[in-house]
Amino acid sequence: MKKLLVAAVAAVMMQVAVADEGKTEWGYSGDAGPENWGKLAPEFSTCGTGKNQSPINIDPLKNVIEAKQKPIKFDYTMLIPERIHHNGHTVQVDMRSGGEIEVDGKTFKLKQFHFHTPGEHTIAGTPFPMEIHFVHQAEDGQLAVVAVPLMPGWPHPTVAVLWQHLPQKKGDSFALANNALRTLEIEKDVTNYYRYNGSLTTPPCSEGVIWIVKRDRVTVAKPQWKALEKVLAHPNNRPIQPVNARLVIE
Amino acid sequence: MKKLLVAAVAAVMMQVAVADEGKTEWGYSGDAGPENWGKLAPEFSTCGTGKNQSPINIDPLKNVIEAKQKPIKFDYTMLIPERIHHNGHTVQVDMRSGGEIEVDGKTFKLKQFHFHTPGEHTIAGTPFPMEIHFVHQAEDGQLAVVAVPLMPGWPHPTVAVLWQHLPQKKGDSFALANNALRTLEIEKDVTNYYRYNGSLTTPPCSEGVIWIVKRDRVTVAKPQWKALEKVLAHPNNRPIQPVNARLVIE
Repeated sequence: MKKLLVAAVAAVMMQVAVADEGKTEWGYSGDAGPENWGKLAPEFSTCGTGKNQSPINIDPLKNVIEAKQKPIKFDYTMLIPERIHHNGHTVQVDMRSGGEIEVDGKTFKLKQFHFHTPGEHTIAGTPFPMEIHFVHQAEDGQLAVVAVPLMPGWPHPTVAVLWQHLPQKKGDSFALANNALRTLEIEKDVTNYYRYNGSLTTPPCSEGVIWIVKRDRVTVAKPQWKALEKVLAHPNNRPIQPVNARLVIE
Repeated sequence: MKKLLVAAVAAVMMQVAVADEGKTEWGYSGDAGPENWGKLAPEFSTCGTGKNQSPINIDPLKNVIEAKQKPIKFDYTMLIPERIHHNGHTVQVDMRSGGEIEVDGKTFKLKQFHFHTPGEHTIAGTPFPMEIHFVHQAEDGQLAVVAVPLMPGWPHPTVAVLWQHLPQKKGDSFALANNALRTLEIEKDVTNYYRYNGSLTTPPCSEGVIWIVKRDRVTVAKPQWKALEKVLAHPNNRPIQPVNARLVIE
C-alpha cells in the first residue's frame, strides 16, 4: 500500500513537471542536457537516434563541396516584429509580418529568430561567440533556417536595439515597435553561404530542415553576448553532431 | 476467461510470426507492405518518420546540383563471392573477400550485392527494369551503397553467370565459384555518378547511408529481369520517398 502511494505521488509529481509549458522539460546540462535529450520523451527520440542532426562543424577540408549554388532570394524589406521574449532556452523575436526567402523555387516565411551563445555551428573547428537563427516555414510545413554566426568585434546594430528590451528572466516578454528591425540588413540575393540538410538544434530535433549558414563577416560586441549569457544563466549551444553521410554545399 | 485465452493464443501466434528469421516479417504488399513498414515494429519506425529515406527520384531539373565531385575510387579487381541466396525479399550474393571503395578518404568494404526489380531509384521520373545494390561498410559501421540502374537491352554478363545458379525459392542458397564475378567491370575512378544522403530501402530503413548512383548506360535483357521477378514472385522495389531538405550532387 505504501509502495502504491509513493508511486501515485511520483506520478503526480511527474505530471506537474511535464505539464509545465505542456511539454517535457529539457535543458543544456545535467540529466536534462543534450546528451540525454533523446531519452527524455518518446517524441524526442530523434535527438538520440537521428543521423542528420544539427549543428555540425563545417569543415572546408573534409565535408564541404563546391557547387553551382543558386542564390537564395531574400525579401527582408518590411520586417514587422511582434515581441521579444525569454522562453527559458533562448531569447526570441516573434514576427508579425514580413520576411521571406525563396529556396529551390519554394517560398519560406520568417516566423521568428533567436539567439545562441556560444554559437552552435563551427567552421573549420572555430567557434563563434553568438549565432542568430532565422526560422522560416513553407506552407507545407517544411523549415529553412538561416544561421548567422557572429564574430567578436563591433556591436551588432539590431542586437543593440533589441537588447534595450532584453527580457531578464524566463517568461518575460515585451512588445516591439514596428520599426525595431529597420537596421537588419540582408541583401536580396545571397550567394555566399553554406547549405546542408539537418535538424532543429533543440528537442524534438526534427529532421528535414534546410540549413543556410551565412558566410558574411558580421560582428557582435562582447558586452552584447555577455548580456545574453547573463539572462539565460547558461550556455545554450547544442554540441556538434556527426556529419555521417552528408556533404555541405558551398 | 475466453477473452484471456484468445489473447494468449494471439500472443503465441504473434511470437511465431516474429520468431521467423528472428525478426518482424515484412513484405512488398498488403498489411506488411512499404506503406506500413514503420508501424510493424518499434525498430522499424524510421521507415515511417525518417526525413532522409531511400529510394528517391533523381530529378536534374529540381533536386540535382552540379559540384566539383571527387572520383570514387573502386578496387574491384579480386572479387571472391561466397554464395548466392534467396532471402524472401531479394536474391543476394554474399562476398568472401575483395571489393573496396574509397569515399571522402574513407575505405568501405563490399559485403554483398543484391537485385531489385523493378529498379528502386528513378531518374527524371524514368523507372528502370532492374537495379543492383552493392553494399559497402566502413570499419566504424557506416554504409555506402553503389546503385547501378540497368536499362533494357543486351544481357548483363555477370547476371548471366549468376542466374545459372538462380535460387528458385526463399531459403535456397548455392556456393559460387571463385571466378563467378570475373565479368563484373567497374572502372577504377568513377566520376560519372549522383551522390546523396539516404537510408536502407528495406526495414529498418536506417539513415546515414551514402548513396552513389552510377550513371553508366549498363543494360539487362528482359528474360534476365523476368527470371528474377519469377523467383521473387513479387516486385521488390520500395516506392519513391520524399527528398525533403536534401540535394543530389552530380
